[in-house]
Amino acid sequence: MFSYRHPHPAVTTNVVIFTIVSDSLKVLLVRRARPPFEGSWALPGGFIDLAEDLEDSAMRTLERETGVRGVYLEQLYTFGQPGRDPRERVIAVAYYTLVPFERVKPRTHDGVGWFALDEHPKLAFDHDEIAAIAARRLAAKLDYSTIAFGFMPEEFTLSDLQHVYEIIQREEIDKRNFRKRVLALNHIEASGERRNGSHRPATLYRLKNPGQITFIK
Amino acid sequence: MFSYRHPHPAVTTNVVIFTIVSDSLKVLLVRRARPPFEGSWALPGGFIDLAEDLEDSAMRTLERETGVRGVYLEQLYTFGQPGRDPRERVIAVAYYTLVPFERVKPRTHDGVGWFALDEHPKLAFDHDEIAAIAARRLAAKLDYSTIAFGFMPEEFTLSDLQHVYEIIQREEIDKRNFRKRVLALNHIEASGERRNGSHRPATLYRLKNPGQITFIK
Repeated sequence: MFSYRHPHPAVTTNVVIFTIVSDSLKVLLVRRARPPFEGSWALPGGFIDLAEDLEDSAMRTLERETGVRGVYLEQLYTFGQPGRDPRERVIAVAYYTLVPFERVKPRTHDGVGWFALDEHPKLAFDHDEIAAIAARRLAAKLDYSTIAFGFMPEEFTLSDLQHVYEIIQREEIDKRNFRKRVLALNHIEASGERRNGSHRPATLYRLKNPGQITFIK
Repeated sequence: MFSYRHPHPAVTTNVVIFTIVSDSLKVLLVRRARPPFEGSWALPGGFIDLAEDLEDSAMRTLERETGVRGVYLEQLYTFGQPGRDPRERVIAVAYYTLVPFERVKPRTHDGVGWFALDEHPKLAFDHDEIAAIAARRLAAKLDYSTIAFGFMPEEFTLSDLQHVYEIIQREEIDKRNFRKRVLALNHIEASGERRNGSHRPATLYRLKNPGQITFIK
């Protein structure tokens, strides 16, 4: 038993991992094997060890629960509403990331799976809210980061890029506005090549600094 | 005594309140009356009650330590490095805000004071890092929010506004770039009036939607 003069909360880390597959934004979930919410799907995570950093805890419990390792995590928000866990006061420090589908290999048996963000089952605890806030943050991040380019080949058309934006921001984007917005970011340049297709040839673009694909601003 | 089967960390909330006074970005600090770091300056805050929400804890401990109440707080980041508190594992959920100087009335005796961000004494714990991260987040926020307008009179020149940006972002800004950037945000419009001064008359601007001054994006 561990005793304290003042009451202490429990603290977990939880991870929201997004990917894009089959033209859909998906989130990695695990099925809970124990109460509370036994049998429900939830975000991977678990209680911190007192000796480990929060991000290390997020990485450790993510790997333990899903087999995924070596991803870059960014802290999202800390959720601490009393009553969010029926057992005791539990504060969840949430992390999130977006990864190319080919980059991670979660276990696919054993209650681990990718779910479309709009179609996943109701999650345990307040994990629906955590996943929704992560999705909003991710959509906002597209406007000031280069994360979308992690999903592009070396050369791509603006339509290809717009398609990724539309999947993540989950709305149709006006083509002319998109062109203006994305060129204003000054991350890409015309490669000099064009792609021939059924329509008129489309200008191909490439990243100005391919080493600078970052999840962070 | 409070006992648990697994070790639990302690959790605090801490608040970084910024204001602008005498053309300088200042942060509100409190002098610690007890160990650890007795006599050092620190960010206001304290241990959470298990029954209260994290934001309520931030508001309660802020008022207890500084007399400040009724401010809008936004969660900044959660700091949990092992060893950041010499007593035990303590995780700090940090909040921040920017308030007009006239809006808050902290106690000014009793170890409470505004300090210039570049000139405050070394702080207790990792509070220097927390304050620095809050200052960076605040500077970034200017580019996609309307918070700077809380420091403007009803009508103002672009130079007035640029001055506030320069104080918060702590760097000189090119006048033409600033004009382009701030007009692109589409928050302000020319009021039709001009201010006469020692130079040629300057166009006065006003907010398009004065009710929409928000700290949040």
